[in-house]
Amino acid sequence: MPTTNRQILLNGRPDGEPKASDFRLGEAPIPKPGPGQFLIRNHYLSLDPFQRGRMNANWRYGRKLEIGDVMIGSTVGEIIESYHPAWRTGTFVEGLLGWQEYALHDGEGGRQDYGPGLTRVDPKVAPVSTALGVLGTSGETAYWSIIDVAKPRPGDTVVISGAAGAVGTIAGQICKILGARVVGIAGSDDKVDYITRELGFDAGINYKTTPNLLDTLRQYCPDRIDVYYDNVGGEIADMMFRHLAKGARYIVVGRIANYNDAKPRLMPDLFPLIMTSRAQVHGFIVFDYEDRIREARAQLARWIDDGKIKYRETIAHGLENAPAAFMSMLKGGNTGKQLVKLFPDAR
Amino acid sequence: MPTTNRQILLNGRPDGEPKASDFRLGEAPIPKPGPGQFLIRNHYLSLDPFQRGRMNANWRYGRKLEIGDVMIGSTVGEIIESYHPAWRTGTFVEGLLGWQEYALHDGEGGRQDYGPGLTRVDPKVAPVSTALGVLGTSGETAYWSIIDVAKPRPGDTVVISGAAGAVGTIAGQICKILGARVVGIAGSDDKVDYITRELGFDAGINYKTTPNLLDTLRQYCPDRIDVYYDNVGGEIADMMFRHLAKGARYIVVGRIANYNDAKPRLMPDLFPLIMTSRAQVHGFIVFDYEDRIREARAQLARWIDDGKIKYRETIAHGLENAPAAFMSMLKGGNTGKQLVKLFPDAR
Repeated sequence: MPTTNRQILLNGRPDGEPKASDFRLGEAPIPKPGPGQFLIRNHYLSLDPFQRGRMNANWRYGRKLEIGDVMIGSTVGEIIESYHPAWRTGTFVEGLLGWQEYALHDGEGGRQDYGPGLTRVDPKVAPVSTALGVLGTSGETAYWSIIDVAKPRPGDTVVISGAAGAVGTIAGQICKILGARVVGIAGSDDKVDYITRELGFDAGINYKTTPNLLDTLRQYCPDRIDVYYDNVGGEIADMMFRHLAKGARYIVVGRIANYNDAKPRLMPDLFPLIMTSRAQVHGFIVFDYEDRIREARAQLARWIDDGKIKYRETIAHGLENAPAAFMSMLKGGNTGKQLVKLFPDAR
Repeated sequence: MPTTNRQILLNGRPDGEPKASDFRLGEAPIPKPGPGQFLIRNHYLSLDPFQRGRMNANWRYGRKLEIGDVMIGSTVGEIIESYHPAWRTGTFVEGLLGWQEYALHDGEGGRQDYGPGLTRVDPKVAPVSTALGVLGTSGETAYWSIIDVAKPRPGDTVVISGAAGAVGTIAGQICKILGARVVGIAGSDDKVDYITRELGFDAGINYKTTPNLLDTLRQYCPDRIDVYYDNVGGEIADMMFRHLAKGARYIVVGRIANYNDAKPRLMPDLFPLIMTSRAQVHGFIVFDYEDRIREARAQLARWIDDGKIKYRETIAHGLENAPAAFMSMLKGGNTGKQLVKLFPDAR
């Protein structure tokens, strides 16, 4: 039995893109559970853009990290020692347990991704890593934002940025299930191939190699854009307002392009275009669907079983490689969900 | 019977705020109606912010004006000579007849404010001038944007900019009827007195004399803003995103602050705030309710009869004074609806 708990700690506040020295590999003794507690050995760590925001000194939404704190992040792991009657050894759980190999818990708290609590994970339903992706927060985000907010109708044209990412891949496939036309924007030809050939998106655009993105959008979306689903933000997101259909829904799900900004970038005043297009811009955060987790997960699991939703994971190996994988993910290095497999024998 | 039709023509394209030399008083013979036509003598001309946009060379939404064109605008007038069986002499009509004293028509076309058609006005229901204001486009804009889009609930906090204007005064009173708390933003102490003492708004803020508007908003809206109703745009509108309640509705009805801009002003990227507040930003244009005009007008007329809605008109006298009244209105010189009474004997 090892005695060391390796952890990735916040070592500095990034100025723009994070760099290796903003993180530090620390070692602590594996904690010993007391009465009513249990010890979790983490198998997979989830890397997500929101974690970048928490590294900022001026972060105001949710818990901010202090220098020396264990980096915030969700993991899935197995209870390996328990002094709590309701949480037995061998149970898999998901929770906001941080960038570390082991964590203590007492089973208290609310919804795991949004609060300090845990969710049980059934390894018979799907690989446990999916509890961090398609059957976790990424899938729930895609599900509720599309089903309850974007509400594409059959034949609607949906444009998705970050289309090959953890949320974009699932969101696009849900739109296809609902009968919409889906155009994905991604950052490499491989990603475009993946979303069009494997996931069935109607078209894909590599924004890095497309000289005039607006012209290309006009070509792929001759009836304009009914739903714009934004995982990214930045100038590409601004541009969409110039090609929205009347009454379009513009869903703000993620702004990865903004997380590195020290202060808000300036953008052209888009409100006149919002007015003339009668667009509806919706801010979305999955927290609001905390009481409907099971509904989303059950439907997503059925669609996976039926072959209607596919998912991919980009996996780094070993906690020490989490910072590099995180920095890569922020630049679009991943396809699908970016995970870190913490032990060679992880399930 | 006079023979001269005085008209205000576009004489130059304004660079920023319009100036007197951008307009020209022209004279044309009063046109002679042919078979199937009729002649209208205009009584009142409506001055509206949208007319400023149409003066720009790069205007792309709706009909743009060319140099020498009669300025665009709605009027209410009386048919004084008719060779059309369905439109009889003595009938009052409202239509987009331009900044001029007389106009020909054939009764064809769609909805008057939005197309070339006419609406009949019953002088027994209310003064005919109200067909340009509270019982016209201004009232309809307020009605549908509040009833169908903003949908304030009892106890909600609504903030309205341009609160003493033609639309803001009516929108705020409808919110009060629905049980909301209403805070109005206006540009003078007199306007603040008017909306709070006469119209029953819960509070008013003179933005020109308030040193820290955001602090004042926090004080008047301790539970944040559930509905922001924007007639104005600009930096004040941007600021509201910092004090929105979760799930707030932000209705973009007018952007008077932007109409003078030669190119879009830059603003801070507000989308992260839209995301974290889960706000819904709605663009609104009253055109979309063309087929429900009667419903809005009937309800507004009932509320006026019941004393639940009051209205005010700021009236300039004589067509030659229309440009000065228009320039004044763009700077907030009006309270309620800005009109021009075209003849001393107008009803």
